[in-house]
Amino acid sequence: MSTKLTPRSQDFSRWYTEIVQRAELADYSPVKGCMVIRPYGYALWENIREALDRRFKATGHVNAYFPLFIPMSFIQKEAEHVEGFAPELAIVTIGGGKKLEEPLVVRPTSETIIGHMYARWIQSYRDLPLLINQWANVVRWEMRTRLFLRTTEFLWQEGHTAHATYEEAQEETLRMLDVYTDFAVNDAAIPVIPGRKSESEKFAGAMTSYTIEAMMGDGRALQSATSHNLGQNFAKAFDIKFLDQNNELQYCWTTSWGLSTRMIGAIIMVHGDDQGLVLPPRLAPIQVVLIPIYRNEEEKGRVIPFLRQVEAALKDDVRLKVDDREEYTPGWKFNEWEMRGVPLRIEIGPRDVAQEQVTLARRDRPGRAGKRSAPLAGLTETVQELLAEIQADMYRKALAFREENTVEPADYGEFKEAVARGFALAWWCSDGACETAIKEETTATIRCIPLHQEPGEGACIYCGRPARERAVFARAY
Amino acid sequence: MSTKLTPRSQDFSRWYTEIVQRAELADYSPVKGCMVIRPYGYALWENIREALDRRFKATGHVNAYFPLFIPMSFIQKEAEHVEGFAPELAIVTIGGGKKLEEPLVVRPTSETIIGHMYARWIQSYRDLPLLINQWANVVRWEMRTRLFLRTTEFLWQEGHTAHATYEEAQEETLRMLDVYTDFAVNDAAIPVIPGRKSESEKFAGAMTSYTIEAMMGDGRALQSATSHNLGQNFAKAFDIKFLDQNNELQYCWTTSWGLSTRMIGAIIMVHGDDQGLVLPPRLAPIQVVLIPIYRNEEEKGRVIPFLRQVEAALKDDVRLKVDDREEYTPGWKFNEWEMRGVPLRIEIGPRDVAQEQVTLARRDRPGRAGKRSAPLAGLTETVQELLAEIQADMYRKALAFREENTVEPADYGEFKEAVARGFALAWWCSDGACETAIKEETTATIRCIPLHQEPGEGACIYCGRPARERAVFARAY
Repeated sequence: MSTKLTPRSQDFSRWYTEIVQRAELADYSPVKGCMVIRPYGYALWENIREALDRRFKATGHVNAYFPLFIPMSFIQKEAEHVEGFAPELAIVTIGGGKKLEEPLVVRPTSETIIGHMYARWIQSYRDLPLLINQWANVVRWEMRTRLFLRTTEFLWQEGHTAHATYEEAQEETLRMLDVYTDFAVNDAAIPVIPGRKSESEKFAGAMTSYTIEAMMGDGRALQSATSHNLGQNFAKAFDIKFLDQNNELQYCWTTSWGLSTRMIGAIIMVHGDDQGLVLPPRLAPIQVVLIPIYRNEEEKGRVIPFLRQVEAALKDDVRLKVDDREEYTPGWKFNEWEMRGVPLRIEIGPRDVAQEQVTLARRDRPGRAGKRSAPLAGLTETVQELLAEIQADMYRKALAFREENTVEPADYGEFKEAVARGFALAWWCSDGACETAIKEETTATIRCIPLHQEPGEGACIYCGRPARERAVFARAY
Repeated sequence: MSTKLTPRSQDFSRWYTEIVQRAELADYSPVKGCMVIRPYGYALWENIREALDRRFKATGHVNAYFPLFIPMSFIQKEAEHVEGFAPELAIVTIGGGKKLEEPLVVRPTSETIIGHMYARWIQSYRDLPLLINQWANVVRWEMRTRLFLRTTEFLWQEGHTAHATYEEAQEETLRMLDVYTDFAVNDAAIPVIPGRKSESEKFAGAMTSYTIEAMMGDGRALQSATSHNLGQNFAKAFDIKFLDQNNELQYCWTTSWGLSTRMIGAIIMVHGDDQGLVLPPRLAPIQVVLIPIYRNEEEKGRVIPFLRQVEAALKDDVRLKVDDREEYTPGWKFNEWEMRGVPLRIEIGPRDVAQEQVTLARRDRPGRAGKRSAPLAGLTETVQELLAEIQADMYRKALAFREENTVEPADYGEFKEAVARGFALAWWCSDGACETAIKEETTATIRCIPLHQEPGEGACIYCGRPARERAVFARAY
C-alpha cells in the first residue's frame, strides 16, 4: 500500500488493473489468459451468486450440472453456433494417454449438450416448461485478455429453458432480463439499459438476443448480462420435441441467459475511485470495518473494551471486520480498507469512548463530507440505515454520470463527439450497413436497441433514411 | 414408477444404478464417463456443499478459484504426483484453432497450480498459515465409471493450506479430517472410521494421507473424504518459501483435503432400501412431503383447506413440498416420494381433517411401524423433533450394520470370510508385501489404519510377525 494508485483520469486501464491486483481480487495465472480469483474477489462473487440464485429460485428455476466436455460434433449441429464459437475453442485430443476418436470441446457455453439432454428428458407438454440453471466454468480462447473482463476461463451461470410456445419462451427471455436488471440496479448499484441486440451483435444461434448495458467510469459500455430467445434453432438441431395436448409432436422453444465474473469488472469500473475499489453494501464481503485508534497503552486500555462492545452490537447484523492488528497504524489501515472498497469504516478513539460514540466514515464520500459521529445507543440501526443510504447514493451517482455522458445527437458530427466520451442514443434505420460503417469510422457499436423508448420516427444518424427505433451506440469492453 | 426396483439383496450394483436414475439424481452424458447431475441430485449436492462450507469458514478458511488448466510441466515437477496422475489426464492440445506450444492438463487436482501461486503470495511468516478452499470440477480419465462413484468429471472441494511448521500442518490435516467426520456423522448420518492410509494407498505426492472410510450396504468400503499432510514435497517442487522470525528462508509445510460428489453415492448405498433412496433429514432437498387424500369433490373441499393450514404452519421451518397434483393417485405419489427418499410424508385425509390431525409416515421405517397421527396444534415442533429422531435413527442403524459386519479375525481363514461380507479389523505388520499378498488373494485392501485404537501388539494376520497396529481391510469402491 506504499505507492498510490495511478489516477483514474490519467490512465483508466492501468488504474483498473492496479485495483484488481492491489485489492487482491484476482491475479494472473501461469496459463496465458486464465485468472486466479483470490479470496476477496471470490467472496464478492459468492455474494453475486447468492443474490442471483435467490432470484432464479424465486422465479421457479432449479440448478443442475452438465458435463464440461462436449463432443465436437455437437457444436457443429447448429450452423450459426459453430461459426460463432469455432475460433474460440479449447480442444481435448488426449484422454487417459490415448488419442481420442472424437475430440472433446471444453464448453464455451452449454446449449448443445443441454439440448441433447433435454431431448431425452422432454416427452410431453407436461414436462414443460423445463427451467434449469447451471453455475459453472466455461472456456473461450481469447487473444487479448483482461482480468475479469475477458479471460480464457471464467465463471458464470447459464440458464437454459424449454417451452411449449414462442410466447412463453419470449416471456421467459424478458423475465430473466428483468431479473438481471433488478440485480444490477438494486444489488450492484449499477444503472443498466435493457435492450435488444442488433443482428450482428446477437448470440451465435439465437433468434433474438437481449442485453443489459452499463456505462463504465470512462464512458465505455459493458455488456453486463444477456438473455436469448433461441427460437426453435437448437430444438431442431438437437431434436427437442414434445407431444402437445392434441397428441402431436412439436419442437420446443428454448431460451438461454447468462451473467459472469465480468460483473466484478463492471462493479470496479462503475464505482471505483482514485483510492481504490468502492463496493455496494449489498454485495460487499465486508460491509463495515472497525478500527481502534490509540497512542499509548493507557488509551488502548480504554479503546479496546469499547470496541468490543461495538463489535458485539454489530456482528450479527452486518458483515463486520475488526482490524485490531498492532503492527499497522490506523492511517495504513484506512488506506488498506479504502483500497478494498469497504463501504463503511468505524473509527474508535479515546474521544469517542469518552462520549460513548463512534466515528463513521463513508467510503463513497472520502474526506470530511463523509464523516460523522453516532452514539453507541441504536448503532445497529444507524449503521443499517447508513448502508442503505450509501447503496442508494452509489446508484444515483452512477446514474447521474451516465446521464451526463449520454447524448441524443442531432447530427453525425455530434454523434462522433458523443461516442468519443460516452453513449449516443441515436435513430437508426435498422440497416446493418450503417451499423458497420459507424463501427469502422468511430469504433462504436450498437450496444442495444432499448426496450423502453418513446415510439416515434426520426432520421438515421448515418444515412438519414427514416428510422423507427433509437439505438445506444458506444465504444465497448 | 410402474415397475419395482431390483431388490437390493438381489443385485446391489443394479439396484444402485436404478435408484440414481429413477430418483432423477443423475443421468449418463453423451461423453463416456461424464455424468449429468440432475436438479434433485444437485439440490442434494448444494446442501452437502453448504454444510461443509459453513464448517470450513468456521475453521478459518476462505474460498478462492484457481484455473482449470495446468501446464503439463507443472504436473511433472513432483515425481510421485506425475506418476500417480499421468495415466488419468485429459489434455488440451488445441486452443483458438492452433496447436499449443505446451499442452494443458485439465486439472485432476490442484496442488501444482495452487503451489505455484502460493510461492508468489507467501513471503514471510506473517502470511502464514494460508488457508484456502476451492469448489470446482476436476477430471480424471476413468476406464470403468459409475454414476457419482467414479466419473471422468466430478465436482468436489479441495482445501490447500500452507504452514510454517510440520506440527501446524499436521494439526490442520487432522482438523479437516475431524471436520469431514463431523459432517459424515451428523449431517449424512454415516458412521466413518477416520484413519491413516498405508503407503501404497496414499495420495500421489503426500507424506501421509488420512481418510474417513464408510461401510456401504453391501459391506464394501467407500473412501468418503481424504486429508493429506504433504510435508515439504510440493513446497520444494514449487519453491514455496517464507522468511521466518529469524529472517531465514524456510520451505512451507502444506496440506490438501477433499470431498466430492462421491458422497452422494455413499448416502445412497448406506441408507437406501428396496423402495429407493432414504435421505438424512439434514441434507434432504425436501424434508417433508404433504399429500392430500380424497375420493371425491366433497372430500376434496374439506381436505384442501386443511392442507393449506398445515402448509402455512410448516413452510417456514422445514423444506416442504406439497404434492397436490390431480393427475396422480395418492398411492402413486407415495411410491414417487419414497423413491426420492423424502424423510417424512404427511398424509391428510377426511378423517384427519375431522380430528384436526395429520398422519405422519417415516421413510426410514416403511409400513405401519413408521406411521402415527399428530395433532395440528404444535405440529411444527412435532415434525422437527421427528426429523431429528429420524436423523439419529438412521445413523444408529448404519452404525449397527457396520458393527454387525465388522470382524476382528483370529486367523486368516476368518479374515477371508470377514472381507467377503464386510470389514476385517486385523493386526498388520506394516509390511507392504503382506498388504499386496492379501489384496491378490482376497481383493481386499487396507482402507485405513484407524486413528483411534487401543495400543497393543498382536500377530500380523497374514505373516504372523509382530504387529503394533490394526488395519481395516475390505473390498472397496
